[in-house]
Amino acid sequence: MASPAVSFAKDNQQRFLGELKDLLRIPSVSTAPEHRDDVRRAADFVADEFRRIGMENVEVIPTQGHPLIYADWLHAPGKPTVLCYAHYDVQPAEPLNEWISPPFEPTERNDNVYARGAVDDKGQLWMEIKAVEALMQGHGGRLPLNVKFIIEGEEEVGGESIAAYVRTEKTKLKADFALVCDTELFAPNLPTLCVGLRGLVYTEIEAQGAKTDLHSGMYGGAAPNPFFALIEIISKLKDAKGKILIPGFYSKVKAPTKAELAAWKKLPFKEEHYRKTEVGSKVLTGEPGYSVLYRTWARPTLEVHGMPGGFIASGAKTVIPARASAKVSMRLVPNQDPDDILKRYTKFVKKLTPKGIDLKIKVYSKGPACVVSTDNRFIKAATEALHDVFKKDTVFIRSGGSIPIVTDFQDVLKLPSVMMGFGLPDDNLHAPNEKFHIPNFYRGIESIIRFFEKLGA
Amino acid sequence: MASPAVSFAKDNQQRFLGELKDLLRIPSVSTAPEHRDDVRRAADFVADEFRRIGMENVEVIPTQGHPLIYADWLHAPGKPTVLCYAHYDVQPAEPLNEWISPPFEPTERNDNVYARGAVDDKGQLWMEIKAVEALMQGHGGRLPLNVKFIIEGEEEVGGESIAAYVRTEKTKLKADFALVCDTELFAPNLPTLCVGLRGLVYTEIEAQGAKTDLHSGMYGGAAPNPFFALIEIISKLKDAKGKILIPGFYSKVKAPTKAELAAWKKLPFKEEHYRKTEVGSKVLTGEPGYSVLYRTWARPTLEVHGMPGGFIASGAKTVIPARASAKVSMRLVPNQDPDDILKRYTKFVKKLTPKGIDLKIKVYSKGPACVVSTDNRFIKAATEALHDVFKKDTVFIRSGGSIPIVTDFQDVLKLPSVMMGFGLPDDNLHAPNEKFHIPNFYRGIESIIRFFEKLGA
Repeated sequence: MASPAVSFAKDNQQRFLGELKDLLRIPSVSTAPEHRDDVRRAADFVADEFRRIGMENVEVIPTQGHPLIYADWLHAPGKPTVLCYAHYDVQPAEPLNEWISPPFEPTERNDNVYARGAVDDKGQLWMEIKAVEALMQGHGGRLPLNVKFIIEGEEEVGGESIAAYVRTEKTKLKADFALVCDTELFAPNLPTLCVGLRGLVYTEIEAQGAKTDLHSGMYGGAAPNPFFALIEIISKLKDAKGKILIPGFYSKVKAPTKAELAAWKKLPFKEEHYRKTEVGSKVLTGEPGYSVLYRTWARPTLEVHGMPGGFIASGAKTVIPARASAKVSMRLVPNQDPDDILKRYTKFVKKLTPKGIDLKIKVYSKGPACVVSTDNRFIKAATEALHDVFKKDTVFIRSGGSIPIVTDFQDVLKLPSVMMGFGLPDDNLHAPNEKFHIPNFYRGIESIIRFFEKLGA
Repeated sequence: MASPAVSFAKDNQQRFLGELKDLLRIPSVSTAPEHRDDVRRAADFVADEFRRIGMENVEVIPTQGHPLIYADWLHAPGKPTVLCYAHYDVQPAEPLNEWISPPFEPTERNDNVYARGAVDDKGQLWMEIKAVEALMQGHGGRLPLNVKFIIEGEEEVGGESIAAYVRTEKTKLKADFALVCDTELFAPNLPTLCVGLRGLVYTEIEAQGAKTDLHSGMYGGAAPNPFFALIEIISKLKDAKGKILIPGFYSKVKAPTKAELAAWKKLPFKEEHYRKTEVGSKVLTGEPGYSVLYRTWARPTLEVHGMPGGFIASGAKTVIPARASAKVSMRLVPNQDPDDILKRYTKFVKKLTPKGIDLKIKVYSKGPACVVSTDNRFIKAATEALHDVFKKDTVFIRSGGSIPIVTDFQDVLKLPSVMMGFGLPDDNLHAPNEKFHIPNFYRGIESIIRFFEKLGA
């Protein structure tokens, strides 16, 4: 089907990519206080673009954390309203020495653009904006449906501000469905919609033993060592096979349906290939008796991300540190309640705490899992649009990651979400050398254009 | 007994302290490559002082690591020869934010001088030098005995260079006994000689799982986590009560004699007071059935000092790190062979390593424990000198720390060591706010003067 909007997008690909690179140059690391101004700069960059392409009511909304951006265009009466979501903040880039090109100097290699945030999520945010620009240009300054944008800058730090905003601005954000571009294709050239996400509870266990750092020669054998306390505790949270040992942890877990499990088995996925090319480890780990897709999409997990404290520079220091901590998170699956899990976790950790150790648990983020129904016209239109672009049937997958806002859209705004993402499994999200495959950036723009045109037809 | 040397020392106390402060201002952190020039500067400072006070054959000796300093004065035929040892390198000062005054800006508070290295060991090095200066001044430009100095700059990083030097320069370093000033008084005003030290094996266990950092949402449940591997391993190296579980670890351990144990019981030591004032923890830890002094002086221990890797900045990052490591050390007691222990440890760690984890063990230092006989004229003269200064009988203690050079003096040079130190138990060695009690600095100088005068009489 000929579309002037698609033609416009194709004619402007190089410009679109150049603009994305400008956005990628802004180190909008939301977790780092020293990047606060950069995050703000990225928000202004996005808001300016909304104004430029003809969106209305553009607002950079101050919050307790980083700004939200709102924009709309609502002149298509009788047509559906979409709420477009993406985020402009990025993960920290550390460890810096493992990047081949600097994380905030976008660099093209082999049809990819390498930069922190390339695919997660600036590249996919830019797809949404460029699709709307192309639609506006291809439809004589109008859009085929009503469009609202709510863009956040705290996705990588728990998304508290947008969660609060969604709760207070239900009318303003009212729509028929949400478009969320923050996921990936299951395989190159395989159109994919994500219909399930895991939840997340992210904590830091802080342990204190002595009042001050002590010499391990003088005091070894008498002073409590908070690292040992953490090691003792964490070694009992999960067994060597990956089973989490917190009492009642699995009691509410809802298993996928037989139909889902059967569909997953048909996906082009070879565990051995995944092990070699994506993970690069000698073996894969996790609960026996579950496939990799089952384990990463529909089983809860518990991980340690870092253990600050003591002496971590190169060389040796014979210290028994006064304090140490462990960043521990849990991924949750449908029907596990984050508050209930956090309560069980806290109770168990405290029970395991050795005598003489003062222990505190700090909570960084907390959100439930979410499964989206495929039985609605938005998912169907998305599937058709993807077929137009990829000439293939869409596969329905889940993701092991968490997008808490999808749950909020469902529970608070009563919106189904279409999670249409164009990343690839080897895009190095949250890792050094993050990239976005440039043809996927363009196909993402075209898919959104066709998706919106179908809904507005 | 009137001594012109003691009078000279008393008249020059303020100058001596000022010079020590100049030395403390040099951040000679031997473990930090960025302080290499500072370490060299400290060596030159010490060598210049040897020349100034009239020592001969002063040499700053280049090594693979940091320089050694040699100096001698050998014009007392028929008199004993002492080999004086101390070190001019210091521990890293981190965590910097816990220092009340900056670590390399020596500051006086309550009759103490606060600085990194104040007592460990620059203050005690300076006692030796100032005692020799005072003796030279009080004895008409001569010394009552023959004196050699061998001063090192790698004590805090394993002391490899002095260990090699002692082996190749046995004749040059020939002496009748060694004076080692790097220990402490058992209690304020209680003259103390240290006659036993624990050994040390310090390692870093490096674990690698995936080839690169991975997103814990996407890969949690499939990718091996090196932190979990380290936690699993280390939780099995030592039980919750402090017993080390490495097979054969205790097989060679030599217990203290009944006489020693009886003498330790008479020392002015209250476990509850020690817990409250020195350790500042809710409880003391360690093997049940052994006293604190027994546990810290004569039982082997195993500690974790830091676990570099993953995300350790503030906030949350959902990463499964590719690599993590753990700095783990063991303190050894008499008859435990460091090579044997390292072999047993390595074998056990490798056996405990989960599938899929690549593991390497790096060894930073390795030295046996040492017990010095009290049955010689040097210890007796030291006891008399201490009685002159403190008007009290000397107590014989051990230390839980390690001074591998004392073992080398004994095994390679066949020298008994007199470990005469003037630190205090709350001097915060290796911790923030390290200090040296200034009256002890002066008493240390006087004690060494009187000790050498007795031996030269």
